[in-house]
Amino acid sequence: MQKTMIQELKVKVLEANLALVKHGLVLFTWGNASAILRSEGLVAIKPSGVPYERMQPEDIVVVDLDGNHVQGHRKPSSDTATHLVLYKAFREIGGVVHTHSTFATAWAQAGRDIPLVGTTHADYFSGDVPCSRSLTQREVEGAYEEETGQVIVERFKGLNPEHIPGVLVKNHGPFSWGKDAEEAVHNAAVLEEVARMACISFALNPSPDMNPHLVARHFSRKHGAKAYYGQ
Amino acid sequence: MQKTMIQELKVKVLEANLALVKHGLVLFTWGNASAILRSEGLVAIKPSGVPYERMQPEDIVVVDLDGNHVQGHRKPSSDTATHLVLYKAFREIGGVVHTHSTFATAWAQAGRDIPLVGTTHADYFSGDVPCSRSLTQREVEGAYEEETGQVIVERFKGLNPEHIPGVLVKNHGPFSWGKDAEEAVHNAAVLEEVARMACISFALNPSPDMNPHLVARHFSRKHGAKAYYGQ
Amino acid sequence: MQKTMIQELKVKVLEANLALVKHGLVLFTWGNASAILRSEGLVAIKPSGVPYERMQPEDIVVVDLDGNHVQGHRKPSSDTATHLVLYKAFREIGGVVHTHSTFATAWAQAGRDIPLVGTTHADYFSGDVPCSRSLTQREVEGAYEEETGQVIVERFKGLNPEHIPGVLVKNHGPFSWGKDAEEAVHNAAVLEEVARMACISFALNPSPDMNPHLVARHFSRKHGAKAYYGQ
Amino acid sequence: MQKTMIQELKVKVLEANLALVKHGLVLFTWGNASAILRSEGLVAIKPSGVPYERMQPEDIVVVDLDGNHVQGHRKPSSDTATHLVLYKAFREIGGVVHTHSTFATAWAQAGRDIPLVGTTHADYFSGDVPCSRSLTQREVEGAYEEETGQVIVERFKGLNPEHIPGVLVKNHGPFSWGKDAEEAVHNAAVLEEVARMACISFALNPSPDMNPHLVARHFSRKHGAKAYYGQ
Repeated sequence: MQKTMIQELKVKVLEANLALVKHGLVLFTWGNASAILRSEGLVAIKPSGVPYERMQPEDIVVVDLDGNHVQGHRKPSSDTATHLVLYKAFREIGGVVHTHSTFATAWAQAGRDIPLVGTTHADYFSGDVPCSRSLTQREVEGAYEEETGQVIVERFKGLNPEHIPGVLVKNHGPFSWGKDAEEAVHNAAVLEEVARMACISFALNPSPDMNPHLVARHFSRKHGAKAYYGQ
Repeated sequence: MQKTMIQELKVKVLEANLALVKHGLVLFTWGNASAILRSEGLVAIKPSGVPYERMQPEDIVVVDLDGNHVQGHRKPSSDTATHLVLYKAFREIGGVVHTHSTFATAWAQAGRDIPLVGTTHADYFSGDVPCSRSLTQREVEGAYEEETGQVIVERFKGLNPEHIPGVLVKNHGPFSWGKDAEEAVHNAAVLEEVARMACISFALNPSPDMNPHLVARHFSRKHGAKAYYGQ
Repeated sequence: MQKTMIQELKVKVLEANLALVKHGLVLFTWGNASAILRSEGLVAIKPSGVPYERMQPEDIVVVDLDGNHVQGHRKPSSDTATHLVLYKAFREIGGVVHTHSTFATAWAQAGRDIPLVGTTHADYFSGDVPCSRSLTQREVEGAYEEETGQVIVERFKGLNPEHIPGVLVKNHGPFSWGKDAEEAVHNAAVLEEVARMACISFALNPSPDMNPHLVARHFSRKHGAKAYYGQ
Repeated sequence: MQKTMIQELKVKVLEANLALVKHGLVLFTWGNASAILRSEGLVAIKPSGVPYERMQPEDIVVVDLDGNHVQGHRKPSSDTATHLVLYKAFREIGGVVHTHSTFATAWAQAGRDIPLVGTTHADYFSGDVPCSRSLTQREVEGAYEEETGQVIVERFKGLNPEHIPGVLVKNHGPFSWGKDAEEAVHNAAVLEEVARMACISFALNPSPDMNPHLVARHFSRKHGAKAYYGQ
């Protein structure tokens, strides 16, 4: 039973990683998707450095929440420790994605939150997409990938990760998440498009404005008890 | 007879929705096309949240001009009320399209009309592409989608919707229309390209100019009694 | 014999028009290519408003240099008069192309020459890509398409059209030319890429510089008696 | 034996040149890849002006390090002399690539180094991507292609070409290199994406910052004895 669930998780994680390519979110192997089986405390994640076109379900690596290797003959993505921190801190999420998608990464490199200026953004994120602070020298030289997760969690103090399903890691790139790997990929694609649109909007108007009630309406018509949205 | 016409309308509306994807105007399900059968007062529109790749004619929903459900087992697009306002106010139009296409949405987020600075624009729009005002809190918290239609109609006071076949809804995105769904899609693609070109032009020259007689010539050679245009 | 040559010309013109689509230079039918048979004074040009995917050699229209219809059951492109002015003024050219390609059109809308700031540009154009002046009201309201050709010719006073194989028509878009239709298409694609690169360069540096001897070297290694270039 | 190695080198060089097209780094024939067989002092390089779609292993030209023609019935790329200078100066490299890819070329035209502002960049380049100085009139009018190589080498005084596997030649475009032709192509694609992201980042923030310890960490986790990276 557990075996079947893990096998299904690995297939879903493979599909999620391939979907990153299909959405144009990764160049070479610059991205990774994972998913968690909460009941077992097991995370399936992309192997390190395997080309997407040859990736098979058996290449997907399974680790526990402490990072111990459980299944698979490959090394897990070097970003695994970041994913694990997110799964431990954000108990509601079931999938995590990291990419270097062009526009989201450009905002991360600029060190700026992506301001909420449109309903495309508000349909998915109830506020600005936050950008984390720079890591200190100690953090970078220590358990770097884990510390990357920690600055994300720190940035979300007072924010609801279910309402803001993504973040920019400063000078690095975006992480996104969702109820499963598929939704995390979906949110990664949304984040890239939102980043692109906002970039163009700011070139056209350095101070765009958006009324808070419009944000609330768009977010609530897709989320929560009164959701009715569907274009 | 009426049955055949409605069936044809549904096929046309399906084709129009699929054409939005083909033209690269929609990500996921972020767009919708509809068409009206004026003789019957019936509107066929995209269903809510059905992926384009699986959409069939029988998924297309038919409603009357008051939004009453007439045919189809799906929920109509949540933007249906906006489409209906446009059909009621602009009596000459036969199709309506809404997208979140990148550059048109970026202008909408910037809250700016797209100035008429080239013949590509003038071939289709006789003036700037207008951007609607922000909705008030009351409008947003009330019948939001219908109010969205009303601010478009308000913005067109003194403008001819046949000569300006599209609009930017502030902080949201573009709506376009035409004599049928196919032309509304065509105008949505034109609007996106015009938005992209204008964005680049303004980066190169913050104050581009265009003579009004050139606008008049280009618009009139494609429209009206003396039309002769064809590239 | 003449018949065979005209038939070949029509096939070449069809191929050139289809190549515009392949290079991503046209949306819908926004572009046209033509070629001239100098010995006969006959020009083959794209028909008006026929979709590229259905265009056949017999759709290509043949006119003489005064614009008289010689062959073909279609109306010639509404830009035909502009092409004819160019063939009459620039005796060395054998093909003409007009597009609304995005970046070249954006420069035309901005009303700016494209400054020569790189060897990609210098490999094909020995100087800035010129932008024509605005047409007067009289010119626009008169024989507009012919006047469009005349302002191009006026702009080339003192310039060599073989060394500058393209132009931006202000508020409109690019025209390019070459020894035949194929080379005119090639130059249209080069012009679009040069326009794109220059746009980005100016965003990065408002005053880029390039030494004139570098321009001379790049242009001369591809053109003239001492040409040796080939990447 | 030597014959087999040269044949293999030619196949690799052909594949590298075709990979440039696949990665969208070249328009027409604007790019070239080469590789060196150090044991024999022989370089295989793209022929001049042959369309990629028809290129075969036997079209690849073999020259020695002094540029003497050794094998092949084609003329070598006109950029061959630049490649040879790089192979002679940078003894550790096995492949060289030159392209006119859009964003890298735009930075070269702007005459600016690409500042290191993100981990995508730091994963491959341990510092800014340098831009060479303008060539003097004497250099341009003399052995131009060889002098182009010399200004690259001059620019790398104090820099390690293994840690900075690419350069922008001012007003021209990028060159990149690697342990073989395949890696040189990979670095050309990375350089283009890094150039694109940096361009957008600077539009969003004219003064982005990145901590040096983050650069060191990212570069060292992919390079050197302690490398462990793999996304």
